[in-house]
Amino acid sequence: MLAEIITIGDEILIGQIVDTNSAWMARKLNSEGIRVKQISSVSDDRQHILNALAEAKERADIIFITGGLGPTKDDITKQTLAEYFNVKLVLNNDALNNVLSIFKRYNRPLLEVNRKQAEVPENCEIILNNNGTAPGMWFNADGKIYVSMPGVPFEMMYMMEEAVIPKLKQVLKLPVIIHKTILTVGEGESFLAEKIADIENDLPDNIKLAYLPKMGQVRLRLSAYGNGETSLNDDLEAFAARIVDRVGTNVVAQEDTPLEKVILNHMADKGLTLSAAESCTGGYISHLITQHAGSSQVFLGGAVTYSNDLKENILGVKNETLYQFGAVSQETATEMVEGALRQFGSDYAVAITGIAGPGGGTEDKPAGTVWIAVANTNKTVTKKFTFSNKRAQNIERSAIAAFFMLITLLKETEM
Amino acid sequence: MLAEIITIGDEILIGQIVDTNSAWMARKLNSEGIRVKQISSVSDDRQHILNALAEAKERADIIFITGGLGPTKDDITKQTLAEYFNVKLVLNNDALNNVLSIFKRYNRPLLEVNRKQAEVPENCEIILNNNGTAPGMWFNADGKIYVSMPGVPFEMMYMMEEAVIPKLKQVLKLPVIIHKTILTVGEGESFLAEKIADIENDLPDNIKLAYLPKMGQVRLRLSAYGNGETSLNDDLEAFAARIVDRVGTNVVAQEDTPLEKVILNHMADKGLTLSAAESCTGGYISHLITQHAGSSQVFLGGAVTYSNDLKENILGVKNETLYQFGAVSQETATEMVEGALRQFGSDYAVAITGIAGPGGGTEDKPAGTVWIAVANTNKTVTKKFTFSNKRAQNIERSAIAAFFMLITLLKETEM
Repeated sequence: MLAEIITIGDEILIGQIVDTNSAWMARKLNSEGIRVKQISSVSDDRQHILNALAEAKERADIIFITGGLGPTKDDITKQTLAEYFNVKLVLNNDALNNVLSIFKRYNRPLLEVNRKQAEVPENCEIILNNNGTAPGMWFNADGKIYVSMPGVPFEMMYMMEEAVIPKLKQVLKLPVIIHKTILTVGEGESFLAEKIADIENDLPDNIKLAYLPKMGQVRLRLSAYGNGETSLNDDLEAFAARIVDRVGTNVVAQEDTPLEKVILNHMADKGLTLSAAESCTGGYISHLITQHAGSSQVFLGGAVTYSNDLKENILGVKNETLYQFGAVSQETATEMVEGALRQFGSDYAVAITGIAGPGGGTEDKPAGTVWIAVANTNKTVTKKFTFSNKRAQNIERSAIAAFFMLITLLKETEM
Repeated sequence: MLAEIITIGDEILIGQIVDTNSAWMARKLNSEGIRVKQISSVSDDRQHILNALAEAKERADIIFITGGLGPTKDDITKQTLAEYFNVKLVLNNDALNNVLSIFKRYNRPLLEVNRKQAEVPENCEIILNNNGTAPGMWFNADGKIYVSMPGVPFEMMYMMEEAVIPKLKQVLKLPVIIHKTILTVGEGESFLAEKIADIENDLPDNIKLAYLPKMGQVRLRLSAYGNGETSLNDDLEAFAARIVDRVGTNVVAQEDTPLEKVILNHMADKGLTLSAAESCTGGYISHLITQHAGSSQVFLGGAVTYSNDLKENILGVKNETLYQFGAVSQETATEMVEGALRQFGSDYAVAITGIAGPGGGTEDKPAGTVWIAVANTNKTVTKKFTFSNKRAQNIERSAIAAFFMLITLLKETEM
């Protein structure tokens, strides 16, 4: 079963927003055995939308359309769908009641443009929008399914989860796709490929291997395609086991889990706690950790000590250390991580101090110079990194490097 | 001048990664007067890539292709481009030297697959890759330009900035597009549209207005298309001024700036400092602030006090306050923000305490209950929010709400 996603809106084409909807939808659809054949982003332009629909119909069985359902002039998806299907727009009572109830809830007057949001092409079934005024729409035409949803992420997500996916399961006989991801660290894509070349050659036609590199990590993704054979999962697991065995210590997880979640899961299992002392990462490490539900079981908190004063006051870094060695030094990183352990009372701590850039560097310590320390009550490990002068990249790389160091220390100590 | 972006790779189509490259490229191209007509994500599949190239050629003058240039089996972009242009792959000496120098720098043995990265279709000009082994490629064919680059974001970005954009400027006579963005807060899309309907009706054909809503904010983007008339900018500014005047106090900035950057710029101008005390946002607010170069001029740092102990130890929240009113309360938020001012010595502070969810809620305080406090040395303002039970959304909304409150307090006090 093949799908195509069409996102409508100039904001994507001028790069003002990143299209996160498509990735989310693709992930959902894949896990239900629906393969996304193409994702197309097109402009709020009648002819362009009509062309995109016609092209998608040739490639896919189900066409998902997001965006262009707002109340303003540049939103023309609904009219264009009506034109595509050669039908009229009609007022839908359920959609109107939803609009009315939303305006009542917020006690705001209903404008004519809002009432228009309840008009839909007459050949569609509406999908109620619990989080907004624009209804979703489901069309059956010429043996294809078309689903049009708002571009606002949480409105679309709610519709997909509550209405669209359940309905697709009802009306379609879906094939089976299973993915298995192996997360590796510290080894490049081509070296991994060389290492497991013979295993890759042994893969049957219905199992594919993809290399997904991302800043110091490579995800190896095995995908098995089938029609419900019970052996599919066994086959996949057998190949995964061979790869894990071959790659060895570079394997960090046998699931598609973010690095920091691997740490959280492991530490939660062992009843360990963590704190962070961040300078150049400015809260990013804490954010990566705390974005995960349940992180409070492990993560006590930490400090973002951008200024030297805060390094002294919160973490107890000595004034003479800062003066003698500088804020970006092995000595300061060590005192930061040991200060975090002491002040925050955690079993493990991580500390980062560096020059995120692009400015602020010196000849001795150019932008991108970063000292990272990880520690438990028995051992402190420090390491210096020299990244680039790109701020966002340096913050990201520092976080990944810190997590690597923490995993390594945890492995040594606790595994 | 129209462009199309084709991203190649199954990882986007199964939703394992979000396509941030296209948004970045689109923004760059737009600012140079090149409009992106369509963005298409296709799979690592020969026929599918050939079709996408053929379709793009019908729509666009310049076709940008990213991805599929890695050394592994699933990377087939190069072979497919050679087939598309009906040419052979040949070894390129400059590209080979680049590969050799990278392997020498890291002192690693060169594998056959790495050497193959220096092979390119014989009709291309290569674009040197300073950050990796896969060369970029520039093709001129049938009056169209094709540019193929790696999918690794920083490799692609470097090539675009250093080689591709300069070369495009050299060989093309580019038209002019000017954008002007007005950032508004606290008013919905349809109300804004109603408020400025007559101004929108007055817009000439070559000026477009788009509404870009995003969690409590709406960006109004005016785009003027022209061929170098000197009046283009004046026309755009005149319409912008009318809109700004009409929308009034909901206008926060007259440029496309993130909310927190508006705050940073303003505080830097006034020589003011800021600190943060975060519980449920877990470092996200600090991260949003510190991602901006120069933020250290304003931001001293802060605390991520996930545990109650840290709220007491770092911020000086009273134990009896936590006991009597709970960690998520007006009283705790007040003591957190005042503790931040006192302990961190900043002119302004922001504090957030809440239940990010999805778990952890009670009947009294369901997940999504958030107390936010902002303060300067003369005034503390607190406000309660009731969001949903979606963790990521609650963290994002809390940050936006905190920044709104801070801007409002700054406006009252300093503007």
